[in-house]
Amino acid sequence: MKPTIGFIGLGLMGKPMAHNVLRAGYRLIVWNRTPSRADDLVRAGALRAASPQETAAQSDLLVTVVSDPPALEQVLWGPSGAMNGLRAGSVLIDSSTVSPELAQRVAQACLTRGVDFLDAPVTGGTWGAAKGELVFMVGGPPETLDRARGLLETMGQKIFLLGPHGAGQTVKLGMNLLLALEVDAFAEALALVTAAGVEAERLVEVMQSSMGRAPLLDVKAPLMLKGEFPASFPLRLMHKDLRLALDLAREHGVELPAGQAAYATYSKVKDSASDDPDYSAVLRFWKMKHD
Amino acid sequence: MKPTIGFIGLGLMGKPMAHNVLRAGYRLIVWNRTPSRADDLVRAGALRAASPQETAAQSDLLVTVVSDPPALEQVLWGPSGAMNGLRAGSVLIDSSTVSPELAQRVAQACLTRGVDFLDAPVTGGTWGAAKGELVFMVGGPPETLDRARGLLETMGQKIFLLGPHGAGQTVKLGMNLLLALEVDAFAEALALVTAAGVEAERLVEVMQSSMGRAPLLDVKAPLMLKGEFPASFPLRLMHKDLRLALDLAREHGVELPAGQAAYATYSKVKDSASDDPDYSAVLRFWKMKHD
Repeated sequence: MKPTIGFIGLGLMGKPMAHNVLRAGYRLIVWNRTPSRADDLVRAGALRAASPQETAAQSDLLVTVVSDPPALEQVLWGPSGAMNGLRAGSVLIDSSTVSPELAQRVAQACLTRGVDFLDAPVTGGTWGAAKGELVFMVGGPPETLDRARGLLETMGQKIFLLGPHGAGQTVKLGMNLLLALEVDAFAEALALVTAAGVEAERLVEVMQSSMGRAPLLDVKAPLMLKGEFPASFPLRLMHKDLRLALDLAREHGVELPAGQAAYATYSKVKDSASDDPDYSAVLRFWKMKHD
Repeated sequence: MKPTIGFIGLGLMGKPMAHNVLRAGYRLIVWNRTPSRADDLVRAGALRAASPQETAAQSDLLVTVVSDPPALEQVLWGPSGAMNGLRAGSVLIDSSTVSPELAQRVAQACLTRGVDFLDAPVTGGTWGAAKGELVFMVGGPPETLDRARGLLETMGQKIFLLGPHGAGQTVKLGMNLLLALEVDAFAEALALVTAAGVEAERLVEVMQSSMGRAPLLDVKAPLMLKGEFPASFPLRLMHKDLRLALDLAREHGVELPAGQAAYATYSKVKDSASDDPDYSAVLRFWKMKHD
């Protein structure tokens, strides 16, 4: 019989991931802070739990996908938190993006309860989540990954075991530093050439024909040129991930000058946004009035 | 009969470009500041001129590929400069990377002599130059490009006409801003994850399997991981191009925070280098002692 899967966090990423688990034939138990986010999953056959603790208590493998470190601490250790429900012998998989330090703290708490843990943040955006083509960056023991692999394969195409607990989060923060800078660099180049009188389309045309070709920008650039920023990966989360990357860098005495500059740019756009745009909205920086 | 081509500047890019012109069956006249750099071209059938002026005087189409704006001003307007030799009805093509403003100044000087001009900087590195697979970014009138197209096609695979004089240089500076930031971003992410205990190879593996995949890093990353930086595009020239991009930005009142940060990083590595490395040597920043 297939194991029972618990799923906590049904946001932009979590919900399509949970649908893929359900479609693969698992028994699925879900919880979300805003309960209505679970309605379509329940209609599709998932069971609704009353709390993270109840979700954990019924799960052989429990997946958490929440937006930031405080949200993860809340669902694990808050009132009716999952940590109190997890059964010895079960597996906790956290696919949120948090600090490697928090991942290690969760691993430690799991260890004392006889629970196996993986940090397993993902990349691929909502598009990858919907298609089941996410990339998992995993930290933890290979034996634990062996127990989780079948489940992860329902949501992702590539699974990288990168080292002990925390290594998944470390690589995820490095990856998002790269993505944030790639989009910010494109926005800077666009601001430069258009200010100097060249059409934005011409830069994209040359760029995508050259060594500097960026597959990510095949997706982002056309929307950015139209000034449209529907959230595939929200700017507020990229901003948070840059903060985590810079915190990790400081912890290890590493300077990240371009990352720091990009963080300041994303911060200004975030502070001035009245909507919840994609991180490609960093381009708005060049339309804003600065003082 | 095929036109006679003049070629001024036989550096890392110019020399392989000139070889491709010669192989295509053109009569080729060459000049380089260090004459020995022309020896192999002369052995292959090129004629050696005594000065830029003499090169220009014998050319139907003249190509200049020198390292920076002062070098271009020197070969055009210095003693025995090319501008004095150019015949009315000939075409000057500058494939150096200089400011759009200088390109416009050269265009103006050509106009008064009845010479057609194109700014036509290239991207693709020494590898693209050797293979005849450069990308040309052209500014100037379409009729002038029509006259030069056959010649450019011996050196490049893609030719983009981007606007009036200076537009080629504008896009080139935007492109190199992108490339400089792409490699610098990779170096920052590498510094971060390795400081946090993850092997460099693991970041590359995940990165190249994800949306953030960068074809440029298929070439650069393996050498960077070995700490080897053979110059395909020298760091000193990327540093100069970033300076030109920042100058152009200031001229138009555009802020480039990440570009500025990357420029500072490239500057530190340039100032401390005792060799002439590729721009991927920006990674050395994280091995240097800072004060």
